[in-house]
Amino acid sequence: MADQTSKETRKKLIALGDKIVNDIERSENPNIEIPIRALSNVVFDKKANQLTLGNKTSKRYYFNVAHSKKFMQTMMVASFCKSLLDNSIHASIRDMYYNLKRTLPDSDENTIDEQSESDPLIVDIEVALDILREQLHLTTDRKGIVAGNVIIQDRGDSIDWSKLGSGGWSIPSTVEEIDIKKVDADFVLVVEKNAGFERLHEDKFWQKHKSILIGTGGQPSRGTRLLIQRLHDEFKLPVYVFCDADAYGVYIYSVIKSGSISLAHVSDRISTPSAKFIGLTISDVFEYDLKKATIKAKDVDIKRAKEMLEYEWFKKNPRWQKELNLMVEKGIKAEIEALSHRGLKFMSEEYLPDKLKKKNFLD
Amino acid sequence: MADQTSKETRKKLIALGDKIVNDIERSENPNIEIPIRALSNVVFDKKANQLTLGNKTSKRYYFNVAHSKKFMQTMMVASFCKSLLDNSIHASIRDMYYNLKRTLPDSDENTIDEQSESDPLIVDIEVALDILREQLHLTTDRKGIVAGNVIIQDRGDSIDWSKLGSGGWSIPSTVEEIDIKKVDADFVLVVEKNAGFERLHEDKFWQKHKSILIGTGGQPSRGTRLLIQRLHDEFKLPVYVFCDADAYGVYIYSVIKSGSISLAHVSDRISTPSAKFIGLTISDVFEYDLKKATIKAKDVDIKRAKEMLEYEWFKKNPRWQKELNLMVEKGIKAEIEALSHRGLKFMSEEYLPDKLKKKNFLD
Repeated sequence: MADQTSKETRKKLIALGDKIVNDIERSENPNIEIPIRALSNVVFDKKANQLTLGNKTSKRYYFNVAHSKKFMQTMMVASFCKSLLDNSIHASIRDMYYNLKRTLPDSDENTIDEQSESDPLIVDIEVALDILREQLHLTTDRKGIVAGNVIIQDRGDSIDWSKLGSGGWSIPSTVEEIDIKKVDADFVLVVEKNAGFERLHEDKFWQKHKSILIGTGGQPSRGTRLLIQRLHDEFKLPVYVFCDADAYGVYIYSVIKSGSISLAHVSDRISTPSAKFIGLTISDVFEYDLKKATIKAKDVDIKRAKEMLEYEWFKKNPRWQKELNLMVEKGIKAEIEALSHRGLKFMSEEYLPDKLKKKNFLD
Repeated sequence: MADQTSKETRKKLIALGDKIVNDIERSENPNIEIPIRALSNVVFDKKANQLTLGNKTSKRYYFNVAHSKKFMQTMMVASFCKSLLDNSIHASIRDMYYNLKRTLPDSDENTIDEQSESDPLIVDIEVALDILREQLHLTTDRKGIVAGNVIIQDRGDSIDWSKLGSGGWSIPSTVEEIDIKKVDADFVLVVEKNAGFERLHEDKFWQKHKSILIGTGGQPSRGTRLLIQRLHDEFKLPVYVFCDADAYGVYIYSVIKSGSISLAHVSDRISTPSAKFIGLTISDVFEYDLKKATIKAKDVDIKRAKEMLEYEWFKKNPRWQKELNLMVEKGIKAEIEALSHRGLKFMSEEYLPDKLKKKNFLD
């Protein structure tokens, strides 16, 4: 998988270079066509249930005083990425910035002054060539842990996610490149909080309920989102997301499911539209007798919940309307740790099994 | 190891309970003696090179209107921890809070209202009984990754840290309980940043230089600090810490080495006084031609560097005085990613090998 992806990405980068050479040979103004990423070109694709980019594009020209430097920088970034692929190595976007920053001979002009100049160019290349940053061998910060009956192949190692003790496998950003060899699981359970991961991992939830357990440690990293999507796409595993009963928890779920505005250009590559929300809901607070373990919602929680009531993908669903309205009306929120109020193993042995049995999910 | 530690911790908790029962039977006012953790009782132990607690203690009485509730809460926490040990399970401090929070019968009085009430009680028990929170089976948030030629035993799994692909082993908070079976390494390299870990891991630095590579992802978690200490103590491995050349990087080093004020009561258990700072230094910026890759220091960086010049453990060392003064005078800082300015593999293949060869460390 790694080799094939890398070959295709190289081909696209080379085609970009060839196109510019062609422009020059035909005495045309060398240019690159790049889809526009402004909010005006972000649309919600109802069929795919995802945020995505519209059709508007713009051209970046070499002979144009306003474009020239950016054009040069874009070529530098593309060339840097090609050399990463040629050498089978990876770099962070900060590494790239430091590597490309230099002063042009006989001048005071730097190729790049700040990382804020080079970062958007990566996204330009992602959208222009329809590839992921990860395929360009640019790494993003890692976060997230996984455990379950899965065997993968990665950098020559065969790794069994069921045999990693209390630790678990730390999810890198290079998830695109691992080979998932064997999966013995019926679903993926994604937990927003490390404390929830520890609880479920210690209670061997993934063993008892034949599942793959992923802890995101807050908003999931790109690597973790990619992993969730791959497990869903390649092994047809349903994905259940388990978050706090507050606006932030619901937002984490919506990012896993539908993507985010800032990453709308890669939604189809790193989000999982069929993901379902297993809990915690405000309704659960009443159904499972957790009233004593709720927290008073802050103004910002209420404000966010009200905003979400207007999101297209929550608007059409009466159950989400009900839950978001409950947040606003009751003025409370509840963390997944609140389940410990009913006993430490209540989460693993009663709450989640009950939700799974009743298929009590929000979509 | 896990069993032995757990047995001793249980013994201490039971002794605490027995002592209270004894007080009652002898008609004495039941009380617990707790070392004082205020700054007035935090001292720098020059011999051990660590922050530690002084000898001042205070007593918490049951029959004392000002102490009574806290006394009850302390007993609840101790009893909760004993039940964790009895059942061989773990819980986060937030889980504990939710679990212990309840309303006393026929009253409006809660056992605990906020987590800010229960958290300090854990520390009280830690210092009163001279045990670690981890030994009480209370987990802290995890962070940190490790790779290297090490085989451990954890929850029945045998885990080889050299065979985990690009991922690495995610360091849990329960490091006290793992058995480190086999170590084939000459030193431990601790890297402040995940990007640095990725670089060195991909370049197989730990293989080529027979070391254990630990990525802390910023300020290290308690689990990661415990792991560093165990590798040093049990296998006599030197520990080298690799951070940004700025006040925050130096602070991370000082926490690994000497502990922090807020955790002074456990310094001797989770810090590594012999740890050395391998880089990055401002001197390195000039020595390795990285001037183009520095960043202008912010006011807060300069302020912190000036404060550190006055820290006892930096004051006595002329090399630290020189480096901290350079930060102030030059008004610059440099990240470890700045080494990419000299090429992506410069860190793994030139800079670190050169520093190691010359034993160019700060103590």
